[in-house]
Amino acid sequence: MSDINMIRAAAERLKGHARRTPLLNSPFIDTFAGRRVFVKPECLQHTGSFKYRGGRSAVSALDPETRGRGVIAFSSGNHAQGVALAAHEFGVPAVIIMPADAPQMKIDNTRALGAEVVLYDRVGGESREALGDRLTAERGLTLIRPYDEPLVIAGQGTTGLEIAEDANALGIKQGEVLVCCGGGGLTSGIALALEADAPGLRVRPVEPQGFDDVTRSLKSGHIETNNQQSGNICDAILTPAPGQITFPILQRLCGSGLTVSEDECLHAMAIAWARFKVVAEPGGAAALAAALFRKDQIESETVIVTISGGNVDSEMFQAALAKYGDDV
Amino acid sequence: MSDINMIRAAAERLKGHARRTPLLNSPFIDTFAGRRVFVKPECLQHTGSFKYRGGRSAVSALDPETRGRGVIAFSSGNHAQGVALAAHEFGVPAVIIMPADAPQMKIDNTRALGAEVVLYDRVGGESREALGDRLTAERGLTLIRPYDEPLVIAGQGTTGLEIAEDANALGIKQGEVLVCCGGGGLTSGIALALEADAPGLRVRPVEPQGFDDVTRSLKSGHIETNNQQSGNICDAILTPAPGQITFPILQRLCGSGLTVSEDECLHAMAIAWARFKVVAEPGGAAALAAALFRKDQIESETVIVTISGGNVDSEMFQAALAKYGDDV
Repeated sequence: MSDINMIRAAAERLKGHARRTPLLNSPFIDTFAGRRVFVKPECLQHTGSFKYRGGRSAVSALDPETRGRGVIAFSSGNHAQGVALAAHEFGVPAVIIMPADAPQMKIDNTRALGAEVVLYDRVGGESREALGDRLTAERGLTLIRPYDEPLVIAGQGTTGLEIAEDANALGIKQGEVLVCCGGGGLTSGIALALEADAPGLRVRPVEPQGFDDVTRSLKSGHIETNNQQSGNICDAILTPAPGQITFPILQRLCGSGLTVSEDECLHAMAIAWARFKVVAEPGGAAALAAALFRKDQIESETVIVTISGGNVDSEMFQAALAKYGDDV
Repeated sequence: MSDINMIRAAAERLKGHARRTPLLNSPFIDTFAGRRVFVKPECLQHTGSFKYRGGRSAVSALDPETRGRGVIAFSSGNHAQGVALAAHEFGVPAVIIMPADAPQMKIDNTRALGAEVVLYDRVGGESREALGDRLTAERGLTLIRPYDEPLVIAGQGTTGLEIAEDANALGIKQGEVLVCCGGGGLTSGIALALEADAPGLRVRPVEPQGFDDVTRSLKSGHIETNNQQSGNICDAILTPAPGQITFPILQRLCGSGLTVSEDECLHAMAIAWARFKVVAEPGGAAALAAALFRKDQIESETVIVTISGGNVDSEMFQAALAKYGDDV
C-alpha cells in the first residue's frame, strides 16, 4: 500500500515544487545535547511546514476531472495550508474544515491561499465529519486525509529521502531520527524512506505529554487513543490515535516513542531561534526538545531531528523568548 | 586585485565548510512588495551570518606557519564570530577586539567559539587600532580586516555565485539584488560574482538612515563618511565609510543606494519571521525592508534580497514581534 515506490513517485511529482530543505547543525547544540545533532527544518518548506509535501502529492495524483471539482480537508492548520496551496497551484477549489480554536495565523493563511475555510467547535459537540460528508456530497469534492492516506504518506516520505541523501553524504551510517508525531503521516513516511535508503537510521516518534497515543500504542501493540483532543500548545501534533495505515508501518519500523512537556517545547523553540535562526512552532519543536531534554533515552552518537513546522502566533513566540530567550 | 577568479578560488576552499543557502520566496511577500521577491537567508549560514564565508576564506588562505601564530579581528560581532569559528576549525588562536556595546549574544558566542575577546569603549576615546597594533606586534598575529581585504571580499562573493546559480536555474535574467551594506565587503563581492555569472542582475546597497555613507559616496563619486558610528539598532552594518578596495568596485558595478529606518527594519524582521520562518537581525533585515517599503525606488519585476545575519538579542526580537508580529 504505502511503500518506497510511492514515495519515489511522489518525489518526482514534487520536483520543482517542494523546497529541498537542508540539514543544519550547530556546535552549541552538539554541546548542549551531548551528541551530534542535525535538524531538518521543514518550517522552511512552502506554507511553513512539511504538510505541503503531502498536500501536493495527493492533489497532483488526482485525475484532472476529479481534481477539477475540488478537494476538502480537515485540519488544525498545517495540513490546511498545504492542501490549500496545492489546490491553488492547480487552480481548483479547496474547502478546509478547521477547529475554531486553531491559531489565528493558520486560519488567516489558509484563507489567504484561496481556500474556503469552515470553522467548527472542537470542544463542543459539533461533528466535523457530518459537516464534511455533507459538503463532499453536495460538491463532489475529494477528501484529502491528513495522515491516513497513502498519497499523503508518500509526500511526507520525501522528507525521509532527503534526510537519507544528506546523511549518506555526511557519512552517517547509524543514528536515531526523532520525528514530531501526530497521526503518524510524516513519521511513517520517513521510516519507509529510511528503510530503503539509510537502513542504519531508526525513526523514533516524539509526542506531547498527555497526547502520547503513538508511544502507548507501540508499547501495547495495538492502537491506543488519547483521552483529550485539545488543551496543549502543540496543536499541530494533537491527534486522537495513530492511523489504521500509519500504525502498522510505525510498529514495523520505529523505535520506542518519546514524550516532552509544553515547557520543553517552548524552550526548544527559543533554542532553534538562537542557534539555527529558524522559527519553530510548539509541536514543530517537540523532536528538538527530546534531543535536548531526553538525552538518557537516546542511544546513538548522532541524532537527526525534524522541525516539522513554524506556524505560530506572535504572542506564543514572544512568550517562548521571554521565558527562555536568554537561556539558549 | 579582487576579481571573479579570487571568488571562485574562495568557493573551492569553502566547499564542504560554508553552508549552501537556498533562495526562499512567499506568495504573501510577492503581494506585499508588488513584485517577485526572493530572499537569500545568510542568517542560516554557520555563525548566523555571511561573515563566516569571508572569515574562512581569509584564514584558509594563510600559509600554515603564519596561520599557526593566530589571527586578530575588529568586529561588532558577526565578523568576530566568522573569524573565530574559522580559526577554531584550523585550531589556531583568534583575538577579537569588540566594542563593549555590541549585542551580548555576539560577545558570548564569539567567546564560546574559542576566541579571546578584548572589549573597547566605542563611544569613549580609546583607540582600538592602537590596541590591535600592540597585540598584533606582541604575538605575531595576522589581522583579518572585516571588508577591505581581498580574501574576505572573495569569501563574501561566494554568496553571489550561489545567487547567480539559483537565479539562472529559475530563469531570472533581469533584476535588482538588494544587499545589506556596511563597509561593502558583501556588496562588492556579490557584485563581482554577478558581473561574471548573472550580468543582468544589478546590485543595490541598502543602508540605515543616518549611516548612508555608501549611498552618498556613490552619488558624489568619492568616499563620504558618516558623522556618527553608533546609535542605531542595525549594528552589523554601521561603518564609518566604504573601503578603499570596496568602493571602486561598488562604483563600477552598483546601482544607487537605498536607505531604511530602524522601524522599517523591525517590521521586516517580523515579516521574515512570519513568512520565511527565519530570524533576521535589524541590519540583516535592511534589504528586505527596502523591498517592502521602497517599492517606488525599485524598477525590476524581480528582486533578490540578502538577509545577511540573524544574531539579535532576545529582547530586541521580542520588541519587533510585539510591535509588528500581527502586521505581517
